[in-house]
Amino acid sequence: MSTRRDVRRELMSAAISLSLANGFGETTVDEIASAAGVARRTFFRYFRVKEDAVFPDHDDCLRRVTEFLDTAGSARSPLSVVGEAAGIVLDMYAGDPETAVRRYELTRQVPALRERELATTSRYQHAFAAYLNSRRPDEHRDAFRLRHEVAAAAVVATHNHVLRGWLRAGGTGDVRAQFGGALAEMTDALQPWLDGRAGSEQPSSDEILVVVASRQASPWKIAEEIEAFTSRSL
Amino acid sequence: MSTRRDVRRELMSAAISLSLANGFGETTVDEIASAAGVARRTFFRYFRVKEDAVFPDHDDCLRRVTEFLDTAGSARSPLSVVGEAAGIVLDMYAGDPETAVRRYELTRQVPALRERELATTSRYQHAFAAYLNSRRPDEHRDAFRLRHEVAAAAVVATHNHVLRGWLRAGGTGDVRAQFGGALAEMTDALQPWLDGRAGSEQPSSDEILVVVASRQASPWKIAEEIEAFTSRSL
Repeated sequence: MSTRRDVRRELMSAAISLSLANGFGETTVDEIASAAGVARRTFFRYFRVKEDAVFPDHDDCLRRVTEFLDTAGSARSPLSVVGEAAGIVLDMYAGDPETAVRRYELTRQVPALRERELATTSRYQHAFAAYLNSRRPDEHRDAFRLRHEVAAAAVVATHNHVLRGWLRAGGTGDVRAQFGGALAEMTDALQPWLDGRAGSEQPSSDEILVVVASRQASPWKIAEEIEAFTSRSL
Repeated sequence: MSTRRDVRRELMSAAISLSLANGFGETTVDEIASAAGVARRTFFRYFRVKEDAVFPDHDDCLRRVTEFLDTAGSARSPLSVVGEAAGIVLDMYAGDPETAVRRYELTRQVPALRERELATTSRYQHAFAAYLNSRRPDEHRDAFRLRHEVAAAAVVATHNHVLRGWLRAGGTGDVRAQFGGALAEMTDALQPWLDGRAGSEQPSSDEILVVVASRQASPWKIAEEIEAFTSRSL
């Protein structure tokens, strides 16, 4: 006897296969249920509408992403936590490359499915921005909302860029490593802004200053440099 | 007699008003047409489906954005051209604050309309990334695709952040000035990465080095600094 999870995946697989073969609009719920070996009413026990069968894992994934963010603690940089959360989404695709590639082929053909996927993406992005806002002290939050929105969008864009490249390559290659590299590059570019070292708002007064200097440098010279730097930019 | 444009706007206005009053799902095309003083078949001369009547201007706006990008020339920085293109979208909203605010109220209530708007946003973002790619020399394009995707997403996030704030404030305040400020802040943060001064790829060999130094500094000392800098990062 099939488990709940098996039935879900069989319905998804049938929905994608039949839609690729005959068109999404032309494929009926009856046909999908029949191909998966279940009754029509069983389909509706799992999915509300036909579109949902193509993306059966996003609700669960969003729940896991939100739970991860809620319990991430404050020991790590907010942006790196969000990057790791996006990695959970990537893992969902990477865990089943064959399905991911076939679904990608299908969503490129069917605007309604592409819209559905975009809506899902926007829910992740919203969760990322909310998390970045939550990590900012109350008194600075409003001044950083733009940066958090942009950073959340940047993580999603980085995720989608890497995912799309991997899907176009037929789901081959180490997508996690590629994502790690892209994320590091994007983080290098955005972190200073998130730290308040650029832009028009005042950074927080408890900002930490990291000084990198030659061991041979005179401490007085270093002090001078620090003084010049902080009076300019803090 | 009404012009084409008047009828479009009357249908839109009726669609938004009736949907706010009675619910979007409960509002029929017949009711919208009747409230706008036209026949049902006239509605379908302007719009394919009911959703389209809520957003009558996006197709035209996307056409203007694309045309603007196609003819922008190469005298200005690609990112500032994209920022100006996003300003065309903002102007569409700002040109009719009352409608924009009522539509915002409606899209927050109706997931199908929110999905439709997200799909539209993604078309702008796609056009922005394509433009940034087109401005990059062939031999560097692949190395910069991630940056272009992130920059396009950042412009859209900046636009949406400012637009949403303005809509929540009831469509009052100088939204163009707010967008200009937010865009400048975001550009400050992202421009160095787009210029190739950060990230892991090699910058182009014809990159220009701008040296800022004290007029009292020894030229030999400056040369030494340049040498150290370029051997490290070029």
